[in-house]
Amino acid sequence: MNASVSVIFQGNRRIATVDPADRGLAYGDGLFETMRAHRGELPWWDAHWARLTLAAARLDLPLPDPAMLLGEARALLAGDDGVLKLLLTRGVGGRGYAPPVPAEPTVMLSRHPLPPRAPAQGLAVRWCETRLALQPRLAGLKHCNRLEQVLARAEWDDPRIHEGLMRSTEGDAVCATAANLFVLREGRWRTPAVDRCGVAGICRGWLLGALDALETRLDVTDVETADAVFLCNAVRGILPVVRLGARQWTLPAPEYREVAALQARLAAAHPAFVMENL
Amino acid sequence: MNASVSVIFQGNRRIATVDPADRGLAYGDGLFETMRAHRGELPWWDAHWARLTLAAARLDLPLPDPAMLLGEARALLAGDDGVLKLLLTRGVGGRGYAPPVPAEPTVMLSRHPLPPRAPAQGLAVRWCETRLALQPRLAGLKHCNRLEQVLARAEWDDPRIHEGLMRSTEGDAVCATAANLFVLREGRWRTPAVDRCGVAGICRGWLLGALDALETRLDVTDVETADAVFLCNAVRGILPVVRLGARQWTLPAPEYREVAALQARLAAAHPAFVMENL
Repeated sequence: MNASVSVIFQGNRRIATVDPADRGLAYGDGLFETMRAHRGELPWWDAHWARLTLAAARLDLPLPDPAMLLGEARALLAGDDGVLKLLLTRGVGGRGYAPPVPAEPTVMLSRHPLPPRAPAQGLAVRWCETRLALQPRLAGLKHCNRLEQVLARAEWDDPRIHEGLMRSTEGDAVCATAANLFVLREGRWRTPAVDRCGVAGICRGWLLGALDALETRLDVTDVETADAVFLCNAVRGILPVVRLGARQWTLPAPEYREVAALQARLAAAHPAFVMENL
Repeated sequence: MNASVSVIFQGNRRIATVDPADRGLAYGDGLFETMRAHRGELPWWDAHWARLTLAAARLDLPLPDPAMLLGEARALLAGDDGVLKLLLTRGVGGRGYAPPVPAEPTVMLSRHPLPPRAPAQGLAVRWCETRLALQPRLAGLKHCNRLEQVLARAEWDDPRIHEGLMRSTEGDAVCATAANLFVLREGRWRTPAVDRCGVAGICRGWLLGALDALETRLDVTDVETADAVFLCNAVRGILPVVRLGARQWTLPAPEYREVAALQARLAAAHPAFVMENL
Protein backbone atom coordinates (compact mmCIF):
# COMPACT_ATOMS: atom_id res chain seq x y z
CA MET A 1 0.00 0.00 0.00
CA ASN A 2 2.04 2.91 -1.29
CA ALA A 3 -0.03 5.75 -2.68
CA SER A 4 -3.06 7.13 -0.88
CA VAL A 5 -6.43 6.13 -2.34
CA SER A 6 -9.68 7.76 -1.35
CA VAL A 7 -13.44 7.61 -1.73
CA ILE A 8 -15.71 10.59 -1.10
CA PHE A 9 -19.38 10.80 -0.18
CA GLN A 10 -21.87 13.62 0.04
CA GLY A 11 -24.49 12.33 2.40
CA ASN A 12 -24.75 8.71 1.27
CA ARG A 13 -23.97 9.41 -2.42
CA ARG A 14 -20.53 8.68 -3.77
CA ILE A 15 -18.96 11.69 -5.51
CA ALA A 16 -15.82 11.97 -7.62
CA THR A 17 -14.15 15.06 -6.15
CA VAL A 18 -14.35 17.46 -3.25
CA ASP A 19 -16.52 20.48 -4.02
CA PRO A 20 -14.39 23.66 -3.95
CA ALA A 21 -17.11 25.21 -1.77
CA ASP A 22 -16.74 22.52 0.92
CA ARG A 23 -16.63 24.08 4.37
CA GLY A 24 -13.82 21.75 5.31
CA LEU A 25 -11.63 23.62 2.87
CA ALA A 26 -12.96 27.06 3.74
CA TYR A 27 -12.94 26.88 7.54
CA GLY A 28 -11.55 23.53 8.66
CA ASP A 29 -15.21 22.88 9.59
CA GLY A 30 -14.85 19.18 10.18
CA LEU A 31 -13.43 16.27 12.14
CA PHE A 32 -11.14 13.36 11.40
CA GLU A 33 -10.14 9.95 12.68
CA THR A 34 -6.89 8.19 11.85
CA MET A 35 -7.09 4.42 12.30
CA ARG A 36 -4.57 1.63 12.22
CA ALA A 37 -5.67 -1.13 9.83
CA HIS A 38 -4.58 -4.72 10.35
CA ARG A 39 -5.14 -7.26 7.57
CA GLY A 40 -7.96 -5.17 6.18
CA GLU A 41 -9.74 -4.75 9.53
CA LEU A 42 -9.99 -1.77 11.89
CA PRO A 43 -9.79 -3.29 15.38
CA TRP A 44 -10.53 0.05 17.10
CA TRP A 45 -13.34 1.12 14.78
CA ASP A 46 -15.88 1.17 17.64
CA ALA A 47 -13.74 3.51 19.75
CA HIS A 48 -13.07 5.80 16.79
CA TRP A 49 -16.74 5.88 15.88
CA ALA A 50 -17.72 6.63 19.48
CA ARG A 51 -15.32 9.57 19.61
CA LEU A 52 -16.51 10.86 16.24
CA THR A 53 -20.11 10.62 17.41
CA LEU A 54 -19.40 12.70 20.52
CA ALA A 55 -17.37 15.26 18.57
CA ALA A 56 -20.00 15.54 15.82
CA ALA A 57 -22.63 16.23 18.48
CA ARG A 58 -20.49 19.03 19.90
CA LEU A 59 -20.10 20.62 16.46
CA ASP A 60 -23.70 19.79 15.45
CA LEU A 61 -22.46 17.83 12.43
CA PRO A 62 -24.72 15.09 11.05
CA LEU A 63 -23.16 11.63 10.83
CA PRO A 64 -23.32 9.27 7.87
CA ASP A 65 -24.29 5.61 8.21
CA PRO A 66 -21.45 3.80 10.02
CA ALA A 67 -22.23 0.37 8.50
CA MET A 68 -21.95 1.82 5.00
CA LEU A 69 -18.67 3.52 5.89
CA LEU A 70 -17.16 0.46 7.50
CA GLY A 71 -18.02 -1.56 4.39
CA GLU A 72 -16.37 1.06 2.17
CA ALA A 73 -13.34 1.16 4.44
CA ARG A 74 -12.91 -2.61 4.22
CA ALA A 75 -13.19 -2.46 0.43
CA LEU A 76 -10.53 0.25 0.34
CA LEU A 77 -8.19 -1.70 2.60
CA ALA A 78 -8.58 -4.91 0.55
CA GLY A 79 -7.14 -7.07 3.29
CA ASP A 80 -3.97 -5.01 3.74
CA ASP A 81 -2.22 -3.35 6.64
CA GLY A 82 -1.99 0.42 6.66
CA VAL A 83 -3.68 3.56 7.92
CA LEU A 84 -7.25 4.54 7.23
CA LYS A 85 -8.25 8.17 7.59
CA LEU A 86 -11.86 9.27 7.88
CA LEU A 87 -12.60 12.96 7.28
CA LEU A 88 -16.05 14.39 8.00
CA THR A 89 -16.93 17.97 7.06
CA ARG A 90 -20.09 20.06 7.22
CA GLY A 91 -20.29 19.77 3.45
CA VAL A 92 -20.91 22.43 0.87
CA GLY A 93 -21.95 25.83 2.11
CA GLY A 94 -22.21 29.33 0.78
CA ARG A 95 -19.76 32.06 1.68
CA GLY A 96 -20.13 33.01 5.34
CA TYR A 97 -19.85 31.25 8.67
CA ALA A 98 -23.55 30.44 9.18
CA PRO A 99 -23.84 26.66 8.86
CA PRO A 100 -26.16 25.37 6.14
CA VAL A 101 -29.30 23.85 7.68
CA PRO A 102 -29.72 20.98 7.15
CA ALA A 103 -26.08 20.27 6.37
CA GLU A 104 -25.25 17.35 4.09
CA PRO A 105 -21.86 16.22 5.34
CA THR A 106 -18.93 15.28 3.17
CA VAL A 107 -17.11 12.10 4.19
CA MET A 108 -13.80 11.02 2.79
CA LEU A 109 -12.10 7.72 3.46
CA SER A 110 -8.47 7.42 2.42
CA ARG A 111 -5.93 4.69 2.94
CA HIS A 112 -2.28 5.43 3.49
CA PRO A 113 0.91 3.46 3.95
CA LEU A 114 2.15 2.66 7.42
CA PRO A 115 4.48 5.26 8.91
CA PRO A 116 8.18 4.38 9.19
CA ARG A 117 9.00 1.84 11.88
CA ALA A 118 9.55 3.42 15.31
CA PRO A 119 13.21 3.47 16.41
CA ALA A 120 13.87 0.41 18.56
CA GLN A 121 15.95 2.45 20.99
CA GLY A 122 13.06 4.84 21.73
CA LEU A 123 12.17 8.37 20.68
CA ALA A 124 14.16 11.57 20.95
CA VAL A 125 11.81 14.53 21.41
CA ARG A 126 12.01 18.29 21.86
CA TRP A 127 9.87 21.10 23.23
CA CYS A 128 8.07 23.14 20.57
CA GLU A 129 7.81 26.91 20.79
CA THR A 130 4.33 26.96 19.26
CA ARG A 131 1.79 26.80 22.07
CA LEU A 132 -1.72 25.40 22.21
CA ALA A 133 -4.41 28.00 22.80
CA LEU A 134 -7.00 27.29 25.50
CA GLN A 135 -10.38 26.63 23.89
CA PRO A 136 -12.66 24.46 26.03
CA ARG A 137 -15.35 24.31 23.32
CA LEU A 138 -12.97 22.48 20.97
CA ALA A 139 -10.72 20.74 23.49
CA GLY A 140 -10.53 16.96 23.17
CA LEU A 141 -11.92 16.93 19.62
CA LYS A 142 -9.93 15.73 16.64
CA HIS A 143 -11.16 18.63 14.53
CA CYS A 144 -9.65 20.04 11.36
CA ASN A 145 -8.34 23.33 12.79
CA ARG A 146 -4.74 22.15 13.07
CA LEU A 147 -2.56 25.15 12.26
CA GLU A 148 -0.98 24.98 15.72
CA GLN A 149 0.22 21.44 15.04
CA VAL A 150 1.39 22.40 11.55
CA LEU A 151 3.44 25.30 12.92
CA ALA A 152 4.85 23.19 15.73
CA ARG A 153 5.84 20.34 13.40
CA ALA A 154 7.52 22.84 11.06
CA GLU A 155 9.87 23.96 13.86
CA TRP A 156 12.41 21.20 13.22
CA ASP A 157 13.59 19.10 10.32
CA ASP A 158 16.37 17.17 12.06
CA PRO A 159 15.45 13.51 11.39
CA ARG A 160 17.09 12.53 14.68
CA ILE A 161 14.23 14.31 16.50
CA HIS A 162 11.15 12.11 16.29
CA GLU A 163 8.48 14.27 17.87
CA GLY A 164 7.85 17.66 19.50
CA LEU A 165 6.09 18.21 22.81
CA MET A 166 3.61 21.05 23.00
CA ARG A 167 2.71 23.27 25.92
CA SER A 168 -0.45 25.33 26.36
CA THR A 169 -0.24 29.11 26.25
CA GLU A 170 -0.18 28.88 30.08
CA GLY A 171 2.88 26.63 29.99
CA ASP A 172 1.38 23.25 30.85
CA ALA A 173 2.72 20.23 28.98
CA VAL A 174 -0.16 18.85 26.90
CA CYS A 175 0.85 16.41 24.16
CA ALA A 176 3.13 15.85 21.19
CA THR A 177 2.22 17.26 17.77
CA ALA A 178 0.58 13.94 16.80
CA ALA A 179 0.50 11.87 19.99
CA ASN A 180 -0.59 11.95 23.61
CA LEU A 181 1.86 12.02 26.49
CA PHE A 182 2.16 9.79 29.58
CA VAL A 183 4.68 10.22 32.37
CA LEU A 184 5.45 8.01 35.38
CA ARG A 185 5.88 9.93 38.64
CA GLU A 186 5.75 8.62 42.20
CA GLY A 187 4.76 5.20 40.93
CA ARG A 188 1.72 6.41 39.01
CA TRP A 189 1.16 7.11 35.33
CA ARG A 190 -0.14 10.58 34.59
CA THR A 191 -1.38 12.20 31.39
CA PRO A 192 -2.42 15.81 30.79
CA ALA A 193 -6.14 16.55 30.96
CA VAL A 194 -7.58 17.58 27.59
CA ASP A 195 -10.44 19.75 28.80
CA ARG A 196 -8.86 23.05 27.70
CA CYS A 197 -6.74 21.99 24.70
CA GLY A 198 -5.33 18.81 23.20
CA VAL A 199 -6.98 15.75 21.70
CA ALA A 200 -8.63 12.87 23.57
CA GLY A 201 -6.65 10.21 21.71
CA ILE A 202 -8.03 6.72 21.18
CA CYS A 203 -4.88 4.96 22.38
CA ARG A 204 -4.83 7.39 25.33
CA GLY A 205 -8.39 6.31 26.11
CA TRP A 206 -7.41 2.64 26.05
CA LEU A 207 -4.45 3.38 28.32
CA LEU A 208 -6.54 5.35 30.82
CA GLY A 209 -8.53 2.19 31.33
CA ALA A 210 -5.52 -0.13 31.34
CA LEU A 211 -3.30 1.95 33.62
CA ASP A 212 -5.59 3.62 36.13
CA ALA A 213 -3.68 6.73 35.05
CA LEU A 214 -4.33 10.15 36.51
CA GLU A 215 -5.60 12.92 34.20
CA THR A 216 -3.98 16.01 35.58
CA ARG A 217 -1.97 19.13 34.81
CA LEU A 218 1.75 18.65 34.23
CA ASP A 219 4.41 21.31 33.90
CA VAL A 220 7.67 21.10 31.99
CA THR A 221 9.60 20.01 35.07
CA ASP A 222 7.09 17.25 35.81
CA VAL A 223 7.91 15.77 32.41
CA GLU A 224 11.66 16.33 32.52
CA THR A 225 12.00 14.77 35.96
CA ALA A 226 9.61 11.87 35.34
CA ASP A 227 10.83 8.29 35.90
CA ALA A 228 9.57 7.24 32.46
CA VAL A 229 7.84 8.93 29.53
CA PHE A 230 6.02 7.57 26.52
CA LEU A 231 3.93 8.91 23.66
CA CYS A 232 1.01 7.10 22.13
CA ASN A 233 -1.44 7.28 19.28
CA ALA A 234 -3.83 4.99 17.45
CA VAL A 235 -1.49 4.49 14.50
CA ARG A 236 1.80 3.77 16.26
CA GLY A 237 0.74 2.49 19.66
CA ILE A 238 3.05 3.11 22.62
CA LEU A 239 6.36 4.87 21.90
CA PRO A 240 8.88 5.08 24.76
CA VAL A 241 10.78 8.37 24.99
CA VAL A 242 14.51 8.17 25.76
CA ARG A 243 15.61 11.76 25.21
CA LEU A 244 14.04 15.17 25.81
CA GLY A 245 16.54 17.97 25.31
CA ALA A 246 19.31 17.34 27.83
CA ARG A 247 17.36 14.70 29.75
CA GLN A 248 18.03 11.06 28.87
CA TRP A 249 16.29 7.94 30.05
CA THR A 250 18.02 4.57 29.78
CA LEU A 251 16.35 1.50 28.33
CA PRO A 252 15.81 -1.03 29.73
CA ALA A 253 15.32 0.51 33.14
CA PRO A 254 12.80 -1.03 35.58
CA GLU A 255 10.29 1.72 34.73
CA TYR A 256 10.64 0.93 31.04
CA ARG A 257 10.07 -2.77 31.68
CA GLU A 258 6.61 -1.60 32.77
CA VAL A 259 6.24 0.18 29.41
CA ALA A 260 7.23 -3.01 27.62
CA ALA A 261 4.61 -4.93 29.60
CA LEU A 262 2.05 -2.33 28.57
CA GLN A 263 3.07 -2.72 24.94
CA ALA A 264 2.43 -6.43 25.28
CA ARG A 265 -1.03 -5.78 26.75
CA LEU A 266 -1.76 -3.34 23.91
CA ALA A 267 -0.72 -5.98 21.37
CA ALA A 268 -3.26 -8.33 22.91
CA ALA A 269 -5.95 -5.65 22.52
CA HIS A 270 -5.05 -4.60 18.95
CA PRO A 271 -3.12 -7.06 16.77
CA ALA A 272 -1.40 -4.34 14.71
CA PHE A 273 0.57 -3.42 17.82
CA VAL A 274 2.39 -6.71 18.14
CA MET A 275 5.97 -5.53 18.40
CA GLU A 276 7.20 -7.00 15.11
CA ASN A 277 4.60 -4.84 13.32
CA LEU A 278 6.00 -1.61 14.77
CA MET B 1 -24.00 37.09 -10.32
CA ASN B 2 -25.93 34.35 -8.57
CA ALA B 3 -24.05 31.09 -8.27
CA SER B 4 -20.46 30.93 -7.12
CA VAL B 5 -17.91 30.24 -9.84
CA SER B 6 -14.33 29.31 -9.14
CA VAL B 7 -10.94 28.68 -10.70
CA ILE B 8 -8.24 26.63 -9.01
CA PHE B 9 -4.47 26.62 -9.45
CA GLN B 10 -1.70 24.39 -8.22
CA GLY B 11 1.36 26.57 -8.36
CA ASN B 12 0.76 28.43 -11.63
CA ARG B 13 -1.07 25.53 -13.36
CA ARG B 14 -4.82 25.60 -13.62
CA ILE B 15 -6.45 22.44 -12.26
CA ALA B 16 -10.05 21.23 -12.47
CA THR B 17 -10.73 20.19 -8.89
CA VAL B 18 -9.30 20.37 -5.40
CA ASP B 19 -7.13 17.37 -4.58
CA PRO B 20 -8.69 15.38 -1.71
CA ALA B 21 -5.22 15.35 -0.09
CA ASP B 22 -5.06 19.16 0.02
CA ARG B 23 -3.84 20.36 3.40
CA GLY B 24 -6.48 23.08 3.37
CA LEU B 25 -9.08 20.34 3.70
CA ALA B 26 -7.08 18.25 6.16
CA TYR B 27 -5.92 20.94 8.58
CA GLY B 28 -7.29 24.32 7.51
CA ASP B 29 -3.65 24.93 6.52
CA GLY B 30 -4.28 28.08 4.53
CA LEU B 31 -5.36 31.71 4.35
CA PHE B 32 -8.12 33.62 2.64
CA GLU B 33 -9.09 37.09 1.51
CA THR B 34 -12.64 38.25 0.83
CA MET B 35 -12.81 41.26 -1.45
CA ARG B 36 -15.56 43.57 -2.59
CA ALA B 37 -15.67 43.82 -6.38
CA HIS B 38 -16.99 46.93 -8.09
CA ARG B 39 -17.70 46.84 -11.82
CA GLY B 40 -15.22 44.02 -12.24
CA GLU B 41 -12.43 45.73 -10.31
CA LEU B 42 -11.03 45.11 -6.83
CA PRO B 43 -10.30 48.59 -5.45
CA TRP B 44 -8.64 47.23 -2.30
CA TRP B 45 -6.58 44.53 -4.05
CA ASP B 46 -3.29 46.08 -2.93
CA ALA B 47 -4.29 46.08 0.74
CA HIS B 48 -5.58 42.50 0.54
CA TRP B 49 -2.42 41.35 -1.21
CA ALA B 50 -0.23 43.10 1.37
CA ARG B 51 -2.06 41.35 4.22
CA LEU B 52 -1.87 38.00 2.45
CA THR B 53 1.86 38.50 1.91
CA LEU B 54 2.47 39.15 5.61
CA ALA B 55 0.27 36.24 6.67
CA ALA B 56 1.88 33.85 4.20
CA ALA B 57 5.30 34.79 5.58
CA ARG B 58 4.10 33.99 9.10
CA LEU B 59 2.85 30.56 8.00
CA ASP B 60 5.78 30.02 5.60
CA LEU B 61 3.39 29.60 2.67
CA PRO B 62 4.72 30.37 -0.80
CA LEU B 63 2.73 32.94 -2.77
CA PRO B 64 1.61 32.64 -6.38
CA ASP B 65 2.16 35.41 -8.94
CA PRO B 66 -0.15 38.31 -8.06
CA ALA B 67 -0.38 39.68 -11.60
CA MET B 68 -1.56 36.31 -12.87
CA LEU B 69 -4.13 36.10 -10.08
CA LEU B 70 -5.42 39.62 -10.58
CA GLY B 71 -5.90 38.88 -14.28
CA GLU B 72 -7.81 35.70 -13.47
CA ALA B 73 -9.90 37.54 -10.90
CA ARG B 74 -10.90 40.20 -13.45
CA ALA B 75 -11.81 37.50 -15.96
CA LEU B 76 -13.98 35.80 -13.34
CA LEU B 77 -15.71 39.05 -12.39
CA ALA B 78 -16.43 39.96 -16.02
CA GLY B 79 -17.19 43.55 -15.21
CA ASP B 80 -19.72 42.78 -12.49
CA ASP B 81 -20.21 43.74 -8.87
CA GLY B 82 -19.93 41.04 -6.25
CA VAL B 83 -17.53 39.38 -3.85
CA LEU B 84 -14.27 37.74 -4.81
CA LYS B 85 -12.75 35.21 -2.46
CA LEU B 86 -9.12 34.13 -2.69
CA LEU B 87 -8.13 30.95 -0.84
CA LEU B 88 -4.48 29.95 -0.52
CA THR B 89 -3.49 26.59 0.98
CA ARG B 90 -0.21 24.77 1.46
CA GLY B 91 -1.30 22.40 -1.31
CA VAL B 92 -1.18 18.66 -1.44
CA GLY B 93 0.62 16.88 1.34
CA GLY B 94 0.89 13.41 2.74
CA ARG B 95 -0.75 12.33 5.97
CA GLY B 96 0.89 14.04 8.93
CA TYR B 97 1.49 17.62 10.03
CA ALA B 98 5.01 18.06 8.65
CA PRO B 99 4.68 20.58 5.80
CA PRO B 100 5.82 19.38 2.37
CA VAL B 101 9.07 21.12 1.36
CA PRO B 102 8.91 22.81 -1.04
CA ALA B 103 5.16 23.27 -0.89
CA GLU B 104 3.27 23.96 -4.10
CA PRO B 105 0.35 26.06 -2.94
CA THR B 106 -3.22 25.67 -4.08
CA VAL B 107 -5.01 28.90 -4.94
CA MET B 108 -8.71 29.19 -5.53
CA LEU B 109 -10.53 32.27 -6.76
CA SER B 110 -14.29 32.26 -6.48
CA ARG B 111 -16.88 34.91 -7.15
CA HIS B 112 -20.02 35.22 -5.09
CA PRO B 113 -23.13 37.37 -5.08
CA LEU B 114 -23.28 40.48 -2.92
CA PRO B 115 -24.64 39.86 0.57
CA PRO B 116 -28.13 41.18 1.36
CA ARG B 117 -28.36 44.96 1.71
CA ALA B 118 -27.57 46.17 5.24
CA PRO B 119 -30.65 47.34 7.17
CA ALA B 120 -31.00 51.13 6.76
CA GLN B 121 -31.89 51.53 10.44
CA GLY B 122 -28.62 49.93 11.61
CA LEU B 123 -27.66 46.52 12.99
CA ALA B 124 -29.02 44.63 15.97
CA VAL B 125 -26.28 42.48 17.50
CA ARG B 126 -25.83 40.07 20.41
CA TRP B 127 -22.99 38.66 22.49
CA CYS B 128 -21.91 35.17 21.53
CA GLU B 129 -21.09 32.53 24.13
CA THR B 130 -18.32 31.01 22.02
CA ARG B 131 -15.06 32.69 22.96
CA LEU B 132 -11.90 33.34 20.97
CA ALA B 133 -8.84 31.49 22.25
CA LEU B 134 -5.64 33.50 22.73
CA GLN B 135 -3.09 32.45 20.13
CA PRO B 136 -0.54 35.18 19.35
CA ARG B 137 1.09 33.13 16.58
CA LEU B 138 -2.13 33.17 14.55
CA ALA B 139 -3.66 36.43 15.79
CA GLY B 140 -4.43 38.99 13.10
CA LEU B 141 -4.28 36.43 10.27
CA LYS B 142 -7.27 35.57 8.11
CA HIS B 143 -6.41 31.88 8.27
CA CYS B 144 -8.67 28.92 7.58
CA ASN B 145 -9.01 27.66 11.17
CA ARG B 146 -12.44 29.17 11.72
CA LEU B 147 -14.36 26.73 13.91
CA GLU B 148 -14.74 29.38 16.61
CA GLN B 149 -16.56 31.67 14.17
CA VAL B 150 -18.65 28.77 12.85
CA LEU B 151 -19.75 27.84 16.38
CA ALA B 152 -20.43 31.47 17.28
CA ARG B 153 -22.51 32.10 14.15
CA ALA B 154 -24.50 28.92 14.81
CA GLU B 155 -25.66 30.29 18.18
CA TRP B 156 -28.61 32.20 16.72
CA ASP B 157 -30.93 31.94 13.77
CA ASP B 158 -33.23 34.87 14.54
CA PRO B 159 -33.06 36.96 11.33
CA ARG B 160 -33.65 40.12 13.39
CA ILE B 161 -30.15 39.65 14.86
CA HIS B 162 -27.62 40.72 12.25
CA GLU B 163 -24.31 39.86 13.90
CA GLY B 164 -22.78 38.42 17.05
CA LEU B 165 -19.98 40.01 19.07
CA MET B 166 -17.22 37.74 20.29
CA ARG B 167 -15.11 37.97 23.43
CA SER B 168 -11.77 36.36 24.10
CA THR B 169 -11.50 33.55 26.63
CA GLU B 170 -10.34 36.29 29.04
CA GLY B 171 -13.55 38.28 28.49
CA ASP B 172 -12.30 41.13 26.28
CA ALA B 173 -14.56 42.24 23.44
CA VAL B 174 -12.70 41.48 20.20
CA CYS B 175 -14.87 41.56 17.06
CA ALA B 176 -18.03 40.26 15.44
CA THR B 177 -18.11 36.82 13.82
CA ALA B 178 -17.31 38.37 10.41
CA ALA B 179 -16.47 42.01 11.11
CA ASN B 180 -14.27 44.24 13.23
CA LEU B 181 -15.64 46.45 15.99
CA PHE B 182 -15.21 50.17 16.63
CA VAL B 183 -16.63 52.08 19.60
CA LEU B 184 -16.67 55.81 20.38
CA ARG B 185 -15.76 56.66 23.97
CA GLU B 186 -14.68 60.00 25.43
CA GLY B 187 -14.60 61.51 21.98
CA ARG B 188 -12.21 58.94 20.51
CA TRP B 189 -12.77 55.87 18.35
CA ARG B 190 -11.32 52.67 19.75
CA THR B 191 -10.99 49.19 18.33
CA PRO B 192 -9.73 46.01 20.00
CA ALA B 193 -6.10 45.11 19.42
CA VAL B 194 -5.71 41.89 17.39
CA ASP B 195 -2.34 40.75 18.74
CA ARG B 196 -3.75 37.83 20.75
CA CYS B 197 -6.84 36.87 18.72
CA GLY B 198 -9.07 38.34 16.03
CA VAL B 199 -8.41 39.35 12.44
CA ALA B 200 -6.63 42.49 11.21
CA GLY B 201 -9.45 43.44 8.83
CA ILE B 202 -8.77 45.44 5.69
CA CYS B 203 -11.57 47.94 6.33
CA ARG B 204 -10.34 48.16 9.94
CA GLY B 205 -6.89 49.00 8.58
CA TRP B 206 -8.33 51.78 6.39
CA LEU B 207 -10.27 53.15 9.35
CA LEU B 208 -7.25 53.12 11.67
CA GLY B 209 -5.63 55.52 9.24
CA ALA B 210 -8.76 57.60 8.67
CA LEU B 211 -9.84 57.91 12.29
CA ASP B 212 -6.67 58.09 14.34
CA ALA B 213 -8.37 55.35 16.34
CA LEU B 214 -6.84 53.75 19.40
CA GLU B 215 -6.03 50.01 19.33
CA THR B 216 -6.71 48.88 22.84
CA ARG B 217 -8.44 46.37 25.06
CA LEU B 218 -12.17 46.81 25.58
CA ASP B 219 -14.41 44.98 27.98
CA VAL B 220 -18.12 44.29 27.63
CA THR B 221 -19.08 47.40 29.58
CA ASP B 222 -16.84 49.58 27.40
CA VAL B 223 -18.90 48.46 24.39
CA GLU B 224 -22.31 48.64 26.05
CA THR B 225 -21.73 52.13 27.41
CA ALA B 226 -20.07 53.52 24.27
CA ASP B 227 -21.51 56.64 22.65
CA ALA B 228 -21.57 54.95 19.25
CA VAL B 229 -20.68 51.52 17.87
CA PHE B 230 -20.12 50.25 14.36
CA LEU B 231 -18.90 47.07 12.68
CA CYS B 232 -16.88 46.99 9.50
CA ASN B 233 -15.49 44.61 6.91
CA ALA B 234 -14.14 44.74 3.40
CA VAL B 235 -17.35 43.41 1.85
CA ARG B 236 -19.96 45.55 3.61
CA GLY B 237 -18.04 48.64 4.66
CA ILE B 238 -19.18 50.48 7.79
CA LEU B 239 -22.27 49.13 9.56
CA PRO B 240 -23.68 51.24 12.43
CA VAL B 241 -24.96 49.25 15.41
CA VAL B 242 -28.23 50.39 17.00
CA ARG B 243 -28.98 47.57 19.41
CA LEU B 244 -26.86 45.29 21.57
CA GLY B 245 -28.99 43.21 23.92
CA ALA B 246 -30.87 45.73 26.08
CA ARG B 247 -28.75 48.70 24.96
CA GLN B 248 -30.15 50.83 22.17
CA TRP B 249 -28.56 53.68 20.29
CA THR B 250 -30.70 56.19 18.42
CA LEU B 251 -30.00 57.22 14.83
CA PRO B 252 -29.38 59.93 13.89
CA ALA B 253 -27.63 61.06 17.05
CA PRO B 254 -24.69 63.47 16.82
CA GLU B 255 -22.25 60.60 17.28
CA TYR B 256 -23.85 58.73 14.41
CA ARG B 257 -23.61 61.74 12.17
CA GLU B 258 -19.88 61.20 12.55
CA VAL B 259 -20.37 57.60 11.39
CA ALA B 260 -22.31 58.84 8.37
CA ALA B 261 -19.47 61.23 7.56
CA LEU B 262 -17.04 58.31 7.78
CA GLN B 263 -19.22 56.28 5.44
CA ALA B 264 -19.01 59.15 2.95
CA ARG B 265 -15.20 59.20 3.25
CA LEU B 266 -15.11 55.42 2.76
CA ALA B 267 -17.25 55.76 -0.36
CA ALA B 268 -14.68 58.19 -1.75
CA ALA B 269 -11.94 55.64 -1.07
CA HIS B 270 -13.79 52.57 -2.44
CA PRO B 271 -16.63 53.14 -4.93
CA ALA B 272 -18.54 50.01 -3.92
CA PHE B 273 -19.26 51.68 -0.57
CA VAL B 274 -21.31 54.54 -2.00
CA MET B 275 -24.44 54.31 0.14
CA GLU B 276 -26.84 53.30 -2.63
CA ASN B 277 -24.67 50.20 -3.22
CA LEU B 278 -25.09 49.00 0.39
